[in-house]
Amino acid sequence: MSISTPLTSLLGIAHPILSAPMDVIAGARLTEAVSAAGGFGILGGGYGDKAWLTQETAKLKGVSASFGIGFITWSLAKRPELLDIALAARPRAIMLSFGDPRPFAARIKSSGALLICQVQDEAMARQALDAGADLLIAQGSEAGGHGASRTTIDIVPAIIDLVAGKVPVAAAGGIGDGRGLAAMMMLGASGVLLGTRFYASQECDGAEEAKKRICAATSGSSVRSIIFDLSRNNVWPAPFNGRCLINDQARRWMGREIELMQNVTAVAAEYAAARAAGNFDIAAVIAGEAVGLIHDIPPAAVIIDRIVTEADQLLAGRRNSSAASRA
Amino acid sequence: MSISTPLTSLLGIAHPILSAPMDVIAGARLTEAVSAAGGFGILGGGYGDKAWLTQETAKLKGVSASFGIGFITWSLAKRPELLDIALAARPRAIMLSFGDPRPFAARIKSSGALLICQVQDEAMARQALDAGADLLIAQGSEAGGHGASRTTIDIVPAIIDLVAGKVPVAAAGGIGDGRGLAAMMMLGASGVLLGTRFYASQECDGAEEAKKRICAATSGSSVRSIIFDLSRNNVWPAPFNGRCLINDQARRWMGREIELMQNVTAVAAEYAAARAAGNFDIAAVIAGEAVGLIHDIPPAAVIIDRIVTEADQLLAGRRNSSAASRA
Repeated sequence: MSISTPLTSLLGIAHPILSAPMDVIAGARLTEAVSAAGGFGILGGGYGDKAWLTQETAKLKGVSASFGIGFITWSLAKRPELLDIALAARPRAIMLSFGDPRPFAARIKSSGALLICQVQDEAMARQALDAGADLLIAQGSEAGGHGASRTTIDIVPAIIDLVAGKVPVAAAGGIGDGRGLAAMMMLGASGVLLGTRFYASQECDGAEEAKKRICAATSGSSVRSIIFDLSRNNVWPAPFNGRCLINDQARRWMGREIELMQNVTAVAAEYAAARAAGNFDIAAVIAGEAVGLIHDIPPAAVIIDRIVTEADQLLAGRRNSSAASRA
Repeated sequence: MSISTPLTSLLGIAHPILSAPMDVIAGARLTEAVSAAGGFGILGGGYGDKAWLTQETAKLKGVSASFGIGFITWSLAKRPELLDIALAARPRAIMLSFGDPRPFAARIKSSGALLICQVQDEAMARQALDAGADLLIAQGSEAGGHGASRTTIDIVPAIIDLVAGKVPVAAAGGIGDGRGLAAMMMLGASGVLLGTRFYASQECDGAEEAKKRICAATSGSSVRSIIFDLSRNNVWPAPFNGRCLINDQARRWMGREIELMQNVTAVAAEYAAARAAGNFDIAAVIAGEAVGLIHDIPPAAVIIDRIVTEADQLLAGRRNSSAASRA
């Protein structure tokens, strides 16, 4: 079975499911697995590590399924040459998040790639449309990693109403199963972008301990804050902050952010050591509100099949009971 | 047309739409209008004004459609005799929110009324099931008025999974149109409870100026905070706070809550004067994230018809395109 939407037509894919360009853990392996399974894998360009990007894009050359490459826009602006490395890999799309996409739009579109822009409010959506975005991702605050404050059920219809059919809109933030995909389609989304769900996949390059913590985490055990950016001396522009699992580090510093900054040298050293040691009581497990829906670490293809199957059954089931109940 | 769910069967209603028991603005007029239109109107017991409750329940005697009466549980605990006034009106259900329902459950259920419990996390849901609740409302942080921090797309599936089919679950928070109803049904909810949407109805006893501000407000223009409770010296127990439209009062005091408390006598006097004068630059317009979806003040029956018609079309539409696209 499959669920066809304007998004699947645009990207030429079977299923309206995109994997988020999660920094360096969404490598070529995950990207290829998602795309091979009929979704749309997006390589994590992240903050722009040239060696990593060169290595991972090399692995993607010759991949037959279409894929994307994502960047943190404000970071790409500091190293614009990385876009050339990305475009040389012939991605079907470049995804830009967190910053003004307009300086990069012409180069992306003239290469033949589509432009995907992730947005967190209406002003960003207008900027993305100005840039000629072919697809918008409306990201709610439930998303893991960086984002802003508006929730998925608020921002998704708001962006859909603003876009008014000009381009497809996919939803991100708190979605982890077929119920979420079906719900977002009812709101008018043409698909979903999933991060945390693909973090807990076999092909994700994240630490096994982090994946296990995602599986063990219950609903409500993540928090959106600036603790983890402060702890690694990673300054993000407003309005963005980051959602991670609540761990000892979060419990220690929540509400004491100024004190953290006053001690940032010591905290950052401790944090770096914890990251190196794989100590996730201190290091962040970057994850979203969907953790409560995630309990295993299957191959990406299994994740996609499950979500599409469940969503299709829900949509078909509603048809039957709705039709049956009509007066 | 109609949409049948376990909730409509339980309450004996045509449409899976409940109106929230909004303090003294959800009076007998709105309650009766919602119920007469095939939804389930719930009278706002609020903090428990005996004269108001006596007056409004008197208007509901002899109403043929079934209706409910809602209470703020921790407030009802201070004036438990108000429950007798409510039960004497022969409501189909009593709805309890914000506190332990167990001390009231036996009296409610032995009267023949159903027990509806609104919950904001899993612990509250377990307490509600212990109390013998017949229906749970899973309320997300997008809701107007009092609530807690977990978002609708997080808390609704979490509560549905916890309840595991024992009783129906309705969703609340950020829902204002048929898209929202259809989306919540995809998440597994049996219906929705709407506050803000019914605030902007002809039968709601709220101020006309407040209704107009809801219609004018755009998505993202409400905030969850303790500013308005502080401003009226209204102490709520943790974890609850309140969502209102962002106005001058919110802009003035956000982030300065301690300073507000230090000046609370003057602030409360100013606030009380503003409320009396209908000055909503200072007084709160209690409203949720759905404000962006609300642009008019129709009769409650029109609201219900629109939502059900839109949801039904969406569910039927997905049937067609989903069926058409199956391989």
